[in-house]
Amino acid sequence: MNRGGQSTRTIAFDAMGGDFAPDAPLRAAASLSRSTDIRVLLVGDARRLEPALARLGANAARIEVIHAPGAVAMDEHPAHAAERPDTSLAVAARAVAEGRAQALVSAGNSGALLLVAARAIPRLPGVRRTAFAAVYPTLPRPHNPDPFALLLDVGANLHCTAEDLLDFATMGSAYAARISKVTHPSVGLLNIGEEAYKGDELLRTAHALLANAKGLSFRGNVEGKDVPLGAVDVVVCPGVIGNVVLKLLESMGDVLMAMGDAVYRERLRWRAGRFLLRDGLARVSNLLDYASYGGAPILGFERIVIKAHGRSRERALENAVKVAAKAVRDDVCGAIAAELAALAK
Amino acid sequence: MNRGGQSTRTIAFDAMGGDFAPDAPLRAAASLSRSTDIRVLLVGDARRLEPALARLGANAARIEVIHAPGAVAMDEHPAHAAERPDTSLAVAARAVAEGRAQALVSAGNSGALLLVAARAIPRLPGVRRTAFAAVYPTLPRPHNPDPFALLLDVGANLHCTAEDLLDFATMGSAYAARISKVTHPSVGLLNIGEEAYKGDELLRTAHALLANAKGLSFRGNVEGKDVPLGAVDVVVCPGVIGNVVLKLLESMGDVLMAMGDAVYRERLRWRAGRFLLRDGLARVSNLLDYASYGGAPILGFERIVIKAHGRSRERALENAVKVAAKAVRDDVCGAIAAELAALAK
Repeated sequence: MNRGGQSTRTIAFDAMGGDFAPDAPLRAAASLSRSTDIRVLLVGDARRLEPALARLGANAARIEVIHAPGAVAMDEHPAHAAERPDTSLAVAARAVAEGRAQALVSAGNSGALLLVAARAIPRLPGVRRTAFAAVYPTLPRPHNPDPFALLLDVGANLHCTAEDLLDFATMGSAYAARISKVTHPSVGLLNIGEEAYKGDELLRTAHALLANAKGLSFRGNVEGKDVPLGAVDVVVCPGVIGNVVLKLLESMGDVLMAMGDAVYRERLRWRAGRFLLRDGLARVSNLLDYASYGGAPILGFERIVIKAHGRSRERALENAVKVAAKAVRDDVCGAIAAELAALAK
Repeated sequence: MNRGGQSTRTIAFDAMGGDFAPDAPLRAAASLSRSTDIRVLLVGDARRLEPALARLGANAARIEVIHAPGAVAMDEHPAHAAERPDTSLAVAARAVAEGRAQALVSAGNSGALLLVAARAIPRLPGVRRTAFAAVYPTLPRPHNPDPFALLLDVGANLHCTAEDLLDFATMGSAYAARISKVTHPSVGLLNIGEEAYKGDELLRTAHALLANAKGLSFRGNVEGKDVPLGAVDVVVCPGVIGNVVLKLLESMGDVLMAMGDAVYRERLRWRAGRFLLRDGLARVSNLLDYASYGGAPILGFERIVIKAHGRSRERALENAVKVAAKAVRDDVCGAIAAELAALAK
């Protein structure tokens, strides 16, 4: 265990969360310690973590192991998991709450992360509900060099008010402005049609609030097709819809490969080009591989909280920690608080 | 104009609805008249339709033109459009209401079709809300030779009760059992997770109702990824979610082609395989071309009502009329009424 390194960016990293824990988090932490100046508090079973870090050649000056005897299972009921104080997730969240780290990263159980973070870390002033935001790849967009857009909420808030949707838009816009390459991210409200009169009362009221909100680049309603096309940088919706849409988007790569296989099977004359086609489809599918991206922020806390995909391997986890460190450096939480305060005036 | 032909299956077909009206409906009607025994009431501007049918070599014994001077525009406000009694849509719906035809098919304005049908055609006994069901292609499924599944509601009901969702499941199951190749279609509730406790109160209550419904093959909750995978034959959800999901699914073919193009552009060495890959992607994309399928039924009326895709060309419209005729022959409305009555016991 090493307490050296006074980097201002310290990330509490759950070593026991995700489908490939603790191996993938260990490798990610070791790699980060060698190639960046990010300081990682690696939280989990110290008896397993410390020898592994030594074997992986980690730079001990940039990693501190914090022992936690328990771990949250991926399929554990979130409310039950959140009751256990000795899990790596709970210990990591407390490290953030106590100021020992400025951000929390976990690839573990999403619901447990939401609950544990909500108990340990205060919400920013003016935040009624924190929101789970997903970063997803879009088609190339002329107005935006960033290949990613933000979709929120994706499951933290099953019911929302119109004011909640306005808050989500504000938080998402502030996050995207600092993390992606656009200074004024465009915002769309996910609805059943583009016209302002479309949708139920919630969506119509939210449309009016968003249209009148200063500081937001609101582009009006967007439809399901606009999500993968990247018509806007930030897509806002209630949590049930966002969750269904996100999981559908995540399946597109697999659907593509399976459909490609179905095409081969049906067309014998295609066998000659099979390898070439399959390789091409795999490249397209990789563009859609959400597990390789940096992770989904939970917005509205006083500290950065990032949920990496459960299937994340070393590289995706490295990216998640780097995104967290960037968000700390760029004071994303402060920016969100400022935007929300401006909205309240 | 010809009144011959005593076929029991007469379909009122809106000649003025859809992006390619009246040309595509005319060609579809002419083709059907030559190749099937379906009788079509073709509704629209008789001065345009009659000479065109003659030019297209239609079998006059199987087509009757019904004159309607007006037409509903694709972007017209549904409530306004529904007020006009002289549109091809309104005249076609009245022909069904008066018993001159047993089914209504239109590729026109969806909202107007819903409203016009609701005014002209009674609901089946026990139907609280009619539902818009979309037929969509899935990945090949071992348990089901039919490459299509049903998603409902996709926009007719923005708010639903749990009882509404049960009715949708019952109607969708009865429809799928007669129109697709499975006798006991599996039903899933679209939710944020598979466990019964997932979702908001509406979804949890609906889960309990569906699980206890006799006669339904309820498979529990399904997630967004399960929709394109075809995990179940009938996916049930409230209308806002279904609409967003449907439009996202509809965009997948275009997204796929655009991503393929992006891959080519970035990888020069791929130029050699460009034609092959593009052709392969086009084949996969065609599998996803919703406009080529037969149309979406609106379930719960005493008569069959089918909405063909606005982009439908001749072949898709022919399919929509054939599906309507098959639904009439197999008494789908009677089957739905029987299932709902069994449910109420």
